Amino acid sequence: MNTNIDIIKSSGEKVKFSLKKLRTSLGKSGADQQTVNEIIDKVKEELYDGISTKEIYNRAFALLKKKGGHLASKYKLKKAIYDLGPTGYPFERFISAILKYSGYKTTVGEIMQGKCVRHEIDVVADKNGMTTLIECKFHTEQGRNCNVKVPLYIASRFKDVKAHWDTKRHETKLEAGWVVTNTRFTKDAIQYGNCIGLYLLSWDYPNNDGLRNRIDRLGLYPITVSTLLTNREKQFLLSRDVVLCRDLIDDLFFLDHLGISETRKSKIQKEIKMLCKQ
Amino acid sequence: MNTNIDIIKSSGEKVKFSLKKLRTSLGKSGADQQTVNEIIDKVKEELYDGISTKEIYNRAFALLKKKGGHLASKYKLKKAIYDLGPTGYPFERFISAILKYSGYKTTVGEIMQGKCVRHEIDVVADKNGMTTLIECKFHTEQGRNCNVKVPLYIASRFKDVKAHWDTKRHETKLEAGWVVTNTRFTKDAIQYGNCIGLYLLSWDYPNNDGLRNRIDRLGLYPITVSTLLTNREKQFLLSRDVVLCRDLIDDLFFLDHLGISETRKSKIQKEIKMLCKQ
Repeated sequence: MNTNIDIIKSSGEKVKFSLKKLRTSLGKSGADQQTVNEIIDKVKEELYDGISTKEIYNRAFALLKKKGGHLASKYKLKKAIYDLGPTGYPFERFISAILKYSGYKTTVGEIMQGKCVRHEIDVVADKNGMTTLIECKFHTEQGRNCNVKVPLYIASRFKDVKAHWDTKRHETKLEAGWVVTNTRFTKDAIQYGNCIGLYLLSWDYPNNDGLRNRIDRLGLYPITVSTLLTNREKQFLLSRDVVLCRDLIDDLFFLDHLGISETRKSKIQKEIKMLCKQ
Repeated sequence: MNTNIDIIKSSGEKVKFSLKKLRTSLGKSGADQQTVNEIIDKVKEELYDGISTKEIYNRAFALLKKKGGHLASKYKLKKAIYDLGPTGYPFERFISAILKYSGYKTTVGEIMQGKCVRHEIDVVADKNGMTTLIECKFHTEQGRNCNVKVPLYIASRFKDVKAHWDTKRHETKLEAGWVVTNTRFTKDAIQYGNCIGLYLLSWDYPNNDGLRNRIDRLGLYPITVSTLLTNREKQFLLSRDVVLCRDLIDDLFFLDHLGISETRKSKIQKEIKMLCKQ
């Protein structure tokens, strides 16, 4: 099969199909080489000019699910992050958790006084005597990128808070501002962020240190990756601030709350444990 | 009739009915005292607890229309501004026109280099050796106010452009940044704008110098105030950059383009002339 075909991205953009990208993506699920090769062979057979990335991804996911639930869960990670919506609140808690497991002390939704006005800061994170202000930009739709206006307003907000902060005594220094999104930054958003000194974190930015990499490295999967929990169950857990699979291991009584049978419960428990295993 | 009743604003907020506000609003249409009194008496009879501002307004408008088309047109000004949508582009041209008739030299949609990135500036306005950058924030829905994020990002944008501007020779000084909206600013948007030195202009802010006041003072009514032109005709004119009634007086051939009959044309012409009369 000729794989020199055009595929359609969620943004509507047309690009050349890349075998390498599909291989990398499947590899990240934790599947072994042989499994990846088998899946790729099957997906290749079903390619056609104008196929959407979503179709390719769904097909690969279905094949992966046959091989083992937890592999499919990891593969579905990007979608799982979208499923944290519709509000941005669980995403903020998720980012806060990622930082906590990287050694930060974090608080969510803190109101801070600026020189001009008061601001609600999504996540405030302390580490090594430094305070970092983090703004989370959550999008429920694919292809909706984070444009330059976001780092522009965060830069002003950071300056306003810092102008007030520096007039008082504090145990830590306020030095860094972050903007985090589950989608992507536009080119000028990145250009502006770098120029003004904001740290930008998106699904795949910075290179090798984006959200996907951090999640894989820390094993901090959101509960929305589960293939066994229903959407209703996931939303129930999110509303109780259970955002990470890891949280669920300690708090299995939430599953009793949901009236989940013992058989399903042990299956879910097994899936969750596989996911948390580094 | 007891006028001590609660009415519902478009934002959903409940407030006490104010006879004074209705009187002021009708007065601004240019109607004489007697007409205003007659209309108020009729509207009062139809008030009830929980009536929406929109209902009151529609009723007053209908009565005003009976008295004379051009009075009703002026009364409908706020809605006419919304009708400049759905895109924000005609509103930018409209703001540009208001500034032009106040002695500024203006350009719309100019790309300007900043220190970090390039920015598209909605309106750039020069007067007395000063350059002003203006960002327009147009909302199609009532009750959607302009929050603090807007002046926050405009402040950063202004600084970025100024940082580059000041490294070059220019005939004018870049000194002022404006944010203009057809709705309202939230309290902290105003607080931040004043603190950081941005000029904010909204429907009724600053007091006695808001958009409504400026439009009345300059007699610069948007073509969308016309009660005789249809929506399709208005959209056609907007797409040809005919935004002001005043523009239409000079370019009546646009009405021929639309295949409007001579009888209707002369009626429209009469309405437009009444509106432009100071």
